[in-house]
Amino acid sequence: MPEDDLVSAYHRYIACLNERDLGRLREFVAEDVEYNGRPVGLAGYRAMLEGNYRDIPDLKFSVQLVVADTASIAARLNFDCTPAGRFLGLDIDGRRVSFSENVFYEFVDGRIRYVWSVVDKAAIEAQL
Amino acid sequence: MPEDDLVSAYHRYIACLNERDLGRLREFVAEDVEYNGRPVGLAGYRAMLEGNYRDIPDLKFSVQLVVADTASIAARLNFDCTPAGRFLGLDIDGRRVSFSENVFYEFVDGRIRYVWSVVDKAAIEAQL
Repeated sequence: MPEDDLVSAYHRYIACLNERDLGRLREFVAEDVEYNGRPVGLAGYRAMLEGNYRDIPDLKFSVQLVVADTASIAARLNFDCTPAGRFLGLDIDGRRVSFSENVFYEFVDGRIRYVWSVVDKAAIEAQL
Repeated sequence: MPEDDLVSAYHRYIACLNERDLGRLREFVAEDVEYNGRPVGLAGYRAMLEGNYRDIPDLKFSVQLVVADTASIAARLNFDCTPAGRFLGLDIDGRRVSFSENVFYEFVDGRIRYVWSVVDKAAIEAQL
């Protein structure tokens, strides 16, 4: 897929996440998606997002950086939010925290097949 | 810079780090480099790497993924190493740990000017 199309599809994916319109997730994510080496599948991926929405009621994905080639996207996402209770094993309890996620997506047939994500937990700890 | 040249320069940069040949760092890194929003400069960047070599005697950078456009590189780096004492605020004390770093580099005039890095601290904690 040309880079521009991939970047455009990626921004539609992020909009879908921000609209919490998970019925449309399969437009962007492959049935056999793997997350950090684990074959979670589309249902598991959706459950993970639902867990995020539950843990972080004001979760919003903001794209700081995107780098794309013909088959992959790398993005730096920023979050400024108030997790309600525990998040990443930390007791946040409604405090406001800002942090980033650097994440790679490998696309197959126009959909996300492999995700390699790292969330900046140390940045959150530094704010607690 | 064409993507291929940028990727080639990036692999030479990683080779330089693995050879610990920091006298050559200025070939790849700008004098006014910023790291995660902090203007550390070339000297600060070099000091950070020297600190890493000291904390992790067997540190070796392995590139899992690279995504490049004309001005930026995103890379997922893997590490399999034995930090001697504390690392990222964790008492590792010579235990062997595997973890990843997802990192973005924005190039200006052929050299790294902005670095946005996230190290997977949670993955290390899960191994302790």
